[in-house]
Amino acid sequence: MSEIPTPTSPPPDVLRCAYLELVVTDLKRSRDFYVDVLDLVVTYEDETCVYLRSLEEFIHHNLVLRQGPVAAAAAFSYRVRSPEELDKAEAFYRELGCRVERRPEGFVRGVGDSVRVEDPLGFPYEFFYDVEHVERLAWRYDLYTPGALVRLDHFNQVTPDVPRAVKYMSDLGFRTTEDIQDENGTVYAAWMRRKPTVHDTAMTGGDGPRLHHIAFNTHEKHNIIAICDKLGALRMSDRIERGPGRHGVSNAFYLYLRDPDGHRVEIYTQDYYTGDPDNPVVTWDVHDNQRRDWWGNPVVPSWYTEASLVLDLDGNPQPLTERTDEREMDVTVGADGFSYTRKEDDGELPSWKQGEYKLGEQL
Amino acid sequence: MSEIPTPTSPPPDVLRCAYLELVVTDLKRSRDFYVDVLDLVVTYEDETCVYLRSLEEFIHHNLVLRQGPVAAAAAFSYRVRSPEELDKAEAFYRELGCRVERRPEGFVRGVGDSVRVEDPLGFPYEFFYDVEHVERLAWRYDLYTPGALVRLDHFNQVTPDVPRAVKYMSDLGFRTTEDIQDENGTVYAAWMRRKPTVHDTAMTGGDGPRLHHIAFNTHEKHNIIAICDKLGALRMSDRIERGPGRHGVSNAFYLYLRDPDGHRVEIYTQDYYTGDPDNPVVTWDVHDNQRRDWWGNPVVPSWYTEASLVLDLDGNPQPLTERTDEREMDVTVGADGFSYTRKEDDGELPSWKQGEYKLGEQL
Amino acid sequence: MSEIPTPTSPPPDVLRCAYLELVVTDLKRSRDFYVDVLDLVVTYEDETCVYLRSLEEFIHHNLVLRQGPVAAAAAFSYRVRSPEELDKAEAFYRELGCRVERRPEGFVRGVGDSVRVEDPLGFPYEFFYDVEHVERLAWRYDLYTPGALVRLDHFNQVTPDVPRAVKYMSDLGFRTTEDIQDENGTVYAAWMRRKPTVHDTAMTGGDGPRLHHIAFNTHEKHNIIAICDKLGALRMSDRIERGPGRHGVSNAFYLYLRDPDGHRVEIYTQDYYTGDPDNPVVTWDVHDNQRRDWWGNPVVPSWYTEASLVLDLDGNPQPLTERTDEREMDVTVGADGFSYTRKEDDGELPSWKQGEYKLGEQL
Amino acid sequence: MSEIPTPTSPPPDVLRCAYLELVVTDLKRSRDFYVDVLDLVVTYEDETCVYLRSLEEFIHHNLVLRQGPVAAAAAFSYRVRSPEELDKAEAFYRELGCRVERRPEGFVRGVGDSVRVEDPLGFPYEFFYDVEHVERLAWRYDLYTPGALVRLDHFNQVTPDVPRAVKYMSDLGFRTTEDIQDENGTVYAAWMRRKPTVHDTAMTGGDGPRLHHIAFNTHEKHNIIAICDKLGALRMSDRIERGPGRHGVSNAFYLYLRDPDGHRVEIYTQDYYTGDPDNPVVTWDVHDNQRRDWWGNPVVPSWYTEASLVLDLDGNPQPLTERTDEREMDVTVGADGFSYTRKEDDGELPSWKQGEYKLGEQL
Repeated sequence: MSEIPTPTSPPPDVLRCAYLELVVTDLKRSRDFYVDVLDLVVTYEDETCVYLRSLEEFIHHNLVLRQGPVAAAAAFSYRVRSPEELDKAEAFYRELGCRVERRPEGFVRGVGDSVRVEDPLGFPYEFFYDVEHVERLAWRYDLYTPGALVRLDHFNQVTPDVPRAVKYMSDLGFRTTEDIQDENGTVYAAWMRRKPTVHDTAMTGGDGPRLHHIAFNTHEKHNIIAICDKLGALRMSDRIERGPGRHGVSNAFYLYLRDPDGHRVEIYTQDYYTGDPDNPVVTWDVHDNQRRDWWGNPVVPSWYTEASLVLDLDGNPQPLTERTDEREMDVTVGADGFSYTRKEDDGELPSWKQGEYKLGEQL
Repeated sequence: MSEIPTPTSPPPDVLRCAYLELVVTDLKRSRDFYVDVLDLVVTYEDETCVYLRSLEEFIHHNLVLRQGPVAAAAAFSYRVRSPEELDKAEAFYRELGCRVERRPEGFVRGVGDSVRVEDPLGFPYEFFYDVEHVERLAWRYDLYTPGALVRLDHFNQVTPDVPRAVKYMSDLGFRTTEDIQDENGTVYAAWMRRKPTVHDTAMTGGDGPRLHHIAFNTHEKHNIIAICDKLGALRMSDRIERGPGRHGVSNAFYLYLRDPDGHRVEIYTQDYYTGDPDNPVVTWDVHDNQRRDWWGNPVVPSWYTEASLVLDLDGNPQPLTERTDEREMDVTVGADGFSYTRKEDDGELPSWKQGEYKLGEQL
Repeated sequence: MSEIPTPTSPPPDVLRCAYLELVVTDLKRSRDFYVDVLDLVVTYEDETCVYLRSLEEFIHHNLVLRQGPVAAAAAFSYRVRSPEELDKAEAFYRELGCRVERRPEGFVRGVGDSVRVEDPLGFPYEFFYDVEHVERLAWRYDLYTPGALVRLDHFNQVTPDVPRAVKYMSDLGFRTTEDIQDENGTVYAAWMRRKPTVHDTAMTGGDGPRLHHIAFNTHEKHNIIAICDKLGALRMSDRIERGPGRHGVSNAFYLYLRDPDGHRVEIYTQDYYTGDPDNPVVTWDVHDNQRRDWWGNPVVPSWYTEASLVLDLDGNPQPLTERTDEREMDVTVGADGFSYTRKEDDGELPSWKQGEYKLGEQL
Repeated sequence: MSEIPTPTSPPPDVLRCAYLELVVTDLKRSRDFYVDVLDLVVTYEDETCVYLRSLEEFIHHNLVLRQGPVAAAAAFSYRVRSPEELDKAEAFYRELGCRVERRPEGFVRGVGDSVRVEDPLGFPYEFFYDVEHVERLAWRYDLYTPGALVRLDHFNQVTPDVPRAVKYMSDLGFRTTEDIQDENGTVYAAWMRRKPTVHDTAMTGGDGPRLHHIAFNTHEKHNIIAICDKLGALRMSDRIERGPGRHGVSNAFYLYLRDPDGHRVEIYTQDYYTGDPDNPVVTWDVHDNQRRDWWGNPVVPSWYTEASLVLDLDGNPQPLTERTDEREMDVTVGADGFSYTRKEDDGELPSWKQGEYKLGEQL
C-alpha cells in the first residue's frame, strides 16, 4: 500500500483516548456484562444505549454501548487539549482526503462539538474537547468492587500494514513506545501513545481495519484475578480468552475477555511512564516467546485471528484489506513457526511446552 | 486390585506433611532452582545434599535434595504427635505386611527416631516426631523476597486406583475433603488431610506409584505472580508448566513449576479451614472444566501424564502399575472427552476455547 | 486470686472458637455496621436478632446480634469434636463449681444440644457440636466485596490475672502460643489456641471479665485496607480505633474497629501454623514497642482501657474485678512507662515519636 | 509578602520532577538506608556521593546523596522537553531577578547542560534536558524486592505563603490539582503538577523555604507494607514517622519515613490521572480530618513542624521566613483547633479519638 502523506496542516493536540462507541446486538446482554459483571458505572441509559465510565473518570463516559444490527466499533474517540484543536483535526484530515464530519452538538450524549473522520486506515476516529463533567468516583470506596475498573487505558486496532499505520499516527502526533519485529524488519505490532503510558492505541498487524480490543485499568493485580474468580462463580469463565498474565510488551499485568458479541476487552494494570521525548523504544523479537506473555504462556489462536468490524460514518462495516506481510501467529506457533525462551537455545522445548508451541502435532 | 485391609492396630496420630526427600541428578542446578530462584532457606548443605525450609517453619527442613543417579522421591515424611506414635506406625504397617525400617538416629540430618515403610501403594512413607528446632523466620522480613514461600502445604501422589488409596489413607487417619468423580462413580482424584487445610496429600489417578508434586504456600496471590515474573526475568519461563490460576478444587490460587529434573512444584495460597469432623466434602464432576481451573483454562497434557518416580527403601525405583480406570485427560480434553462451563449447555464452545478443548483438530 | 484447681474430669475436645453472641442496643444500627459495612452474610434475621456468618463458613453462624438493654457479650461459643464432648464439658465445669446450663434444643437458632457455663473467670462460655450446615460461600466470588471476611479467627478476653486464666485454659486443653511479660515475670497477655493458628482466644490483662474483641479473617492485606477506605467513603472513619498495622505478636496484619455499641472488632490476616505440640512459644518483652505493632505505632489508650461487659447466664452483666498487677499501658506509654525500638538503646526517641510515647500527660 | 510578577518570558516546558540532590552528614549511614533498606539502585558512587535510581527509571538518577556538613536539599531538579527549554528557563528567572547559574557540563554526574536558580521562594531549582540513559530495570524482576520503588513521584516544599507560591508555580506552567483551605480562604497547601499525576511538587504552608519530603512510587499497597515490615525486622521501625495510610488529598496510599539525617521520604502509590486541562480541582476543608488521612488517623506533630533546610547556589542554608497565616496543626489538632469526620456533627469525638485529636496539651 502506498504511504500516507504527511499533511502540511498541523495535527490536533490529542490528550488521550477517551471513549469507544460500540455497537452491540443485544443491549440487555451487553449491559449485563459491562455493568453487572465488570461493574462499570452507568452515567446514562435508555432503550437504545448505555453510557459507561470507570471509577476515576470525570468526563461523561468511556464506553458507549449502542444497540445495532451488526456488532462493530462505531468510533474511537480522543480528547484534544482545547476547542481550537478541532479545527486542526478537520484541516488535517481534509488534507489527507478523508471523509470528515463535524457536529457542534456532538455525535453522542455528553459530548459537544466533535469531528469524526474515516481515517486513512479506515477507522472511525473522533476528536472532541467539550464534554459534560460527572462525579469522579475515585474516593467512593463504598462503590468499589473487587475487580474495580478505574480508567480507560487504550484501544488496540488491527491494520494490515503496521509501518504505514505508524507513519500516519506519528504524523498525528503519537509516539511509538514498543514494537514487535523480526530479523528481516517486518513489523508485527506497534504501541503508540499521547498520554505518558505505553499506549493510547496499538497497531496490530492483520486484516483490517478492525478493533482488536479496548482496555481498562485496575489498581492492582488482585483486581484482575477477582474478575476471573467472579466469572468462574457466574459460570461465565468461557468469557476469558487469554490470561491473566504479564505482558512482555508494556510490562503490564493483563486479562482478555470477550463480551457477548465477541468484542474483546482487556483488563490491564501497571505499565510504566513514557512521557519523556527520548523515552527508549523497546523492540521485541517476534520469536521471543516472552514478548506477549512474559511467562511464556502461548497466545490462543483466536486472539490473533478474531477482531471486531469497524463502521464508516454511515454506519456500514468497513471492508477488510488482507495483511500481506508475515503473520505473527504463523511465524511463532504455526507449523513452520518457532519461538524461544532463550535466544541462544537450540529450541528444544520441555515436554510441557511442546503441545503448546507445536499445536498441530499433539495428542 | 484387591482392597487393602484395615489393620486392627491403630494408626499413628499424624500432625502434618513435614518434608520430602528428593533425589536430584545435578545438585548444583537443583540448588540454584530451589535456593536462588524459589528462595527457600538453606538449613544445612554439603556436597551431596541441601536441606531447605520455608520461612515460617521451625523444624529442621521441609525439603531434602540429595544427589543421586535417578531423579525420584525417596521419602514422603509426616510428623506425628509424639514419640510413642512411631510404635503405632511400625505396628500398623507390619500388620499390613509392608516392609518397615526404623532408625532411632533417623534417615536424614535434623530428624531423630524415624519409621520408613514401603506402603501398600508402593510409596516410601516416613513418620517421625523427634526433630531439631531452627529459627522460625516469620518475622525476618529483611529476608523475604517477592515470592516468599512460607510453609510446606502438601504432597500429591499418583496411584492407579484412587478409591483403594483413599480407603487405606482413611485407615491411616486421613479425611477426604474434596474429590473428582464422573457420573458412573469413577474417582479421578481425592484430596486428604490431617492438618485442617484441604490436604496434606492428594491421590491422583494414574500409573503409579509416582510423585505428582510437592506444594509450598505463599501469603498472597501477588507472591505467586512475582515468581512467574522472576522466572521471566531469568529467561526461565519454560519452568512454568501450568498456571497461575485459581483451582476449583481447594479454591486455592496456584502455579505449577518443573524443577531441573522435571520434579513438579506447586506454589499455593488461600485454601480454607477443614478441621471440623463434618466438614462438607466437595465432589466435582470430571467434566466440569472449572474443577481444576476455576477460570476454565485447560490443563496441559504433561500435567496429567508426567510425574516423578518413587524409590523403595533400598533406593531403587518402584515399578509402575497402570491405571485401568478411565483417565481424566481422556474424558475431558481427549478426542472423545468433553468439558462444560455450564452443565446445562449443549457444549458449543466459543471459538477461543475450541482450540484449547479439542486439541487434536486445531490449526 | 486463688488458683483454679485442675478438674479430674477430662476437658471437652474443643475444635475452635465458633461464634459470639453479642447484645446490641440498636439492632438496626448494628445490622447496618456488620452487614452493610463489613459485608458479613445474613443466615437468619428477625426483629430481635441477626445471625451472621463469614464467606468460608459452613455452620449456621459466627456472630449473633441480639437486641437488648445493655451492650454486652452473652456467649463465647466453641465447637467440640463430637456430641459426647458435651458431657465432658458439663462434668468439667460442675467439678469446678461453676454454674452450668444444658439445653438439648440449644440457646440460639441453628445450634442444637449446648452447654453454657459461667466459667471460673466469669465468662459465659458455650460448647456445642450439633449445628445446622449452610452453604459455604467460598467459591461465590460474585458475592465477595473488597473487604470480604472469610472466617472467624478468635476472641480476646480481658481478665485481671493472666497466669490464673492461662492455667485454667490449659486445663481446658488450650495451648499458649505467645505471651507478653516483663523482666519480673508479670504476664500482661497470653494467646491460646485449639485450632492450629495463633489463637482461638487471648487473655488480656485488665479489669474483667470483659470482651476485648472478636476477630474475623480476610485473605489478603488489601482487603483490610479496603475496609478502611470504605469507612472513609461512608464518613465513618471514626469507627477505626487502631491500625491497620502489623502485629508483633502473631505476625498478623490487623485493624481494630468499634461497632455502634463500642464492641471492638478486629480484622486479621496471615498469622502462622502452630499445630505441633512443641510449637515454640514466643515471649515478648512488654517494653518492646514492636510487640503490639511491629512498625512501632503506639497503641491508643482506649484500646487498653475499654472493653465490653459480659453477661451471666441470667443475662445480667458480670461485675468487674480490678487488675492488681501492673498495667501494660502504664508501663509502656504512661508517665513512668517506657518502650524501646532497640533493646540496647538509651531510649532517646526521635522527635516524631516523642509525642506518641509520652502520652502520660494528656490522659 | 509581595506577589511574584509574571515574567513576559515564557516558562520552560517542564516534563516532570526528575531528581533531588540531598546533602547528608554521614554518607555511609545514608547509603545503608537508601540502598540496603529502601533498595534503590546505585547508578554510580564514590567516597563523596551516591547516585540512585528507581527500577523503572531510564535517566541516570532520581536521587543524589552528597556528603556535606549540614543536612539539606541542594537541588530540586526538573527535566524539560528539549535542550532549547534551558534558554527559556534562564530568561524566565533572570526576568524575575533571581540568581541563575548555567553549566553546560552540568552540576552533577550523568546530567549535561543545566540551569540552576535560587527561585523567588528561595528554593534551589534545576532544569535540564541532556542526561545519560541507563538500563530501565522494569523487567528485571530478579532484582525486585518486596518494597520495590519504581518511580520518583514528587517533591514537597514548605513555604510560608501558599497562594504566592501557587501563583509563581502557575507562571512556571504548573497546574493545581488539589488544595486545602479553610472557610476564610486561607490556603494551607496546594498540589501542583506537570506530568499528569496529582503532583510533581506540592506547596505546604510553613516556615520556609524547606524541603518537606521526596516521594517514590511502588506498584501496589503491599509493597509499602513490606517496607514497614522490613523496618520492623531491622529494628528500625522508629524510621516510620507517619502511616501507612490512605491520603484524602491525592487518594494515594502512603508512608512517611525519616532518613538518618531526618530528611523525610514518602512512599506513595495509586493516585489518579490529571492530564486534562479542565481536570477538576479538589479543595479540602482544613477541618475535615479525612483530608490528610482518609481513615481519620491523626497527623503526628513532627510531620507539620519538621522539614529539611535548602541550600543556596553557594551551598549555604537559606534563612527561613515565618508563616504568618494560620498553621494547619494549630487549627486542627491544636488546643483551639478542631477536626470533624462528618461536617454536620457536633464534634463529639468517640473516646478512642479524643486523645488523638486534642494533642495540644502535650507538645
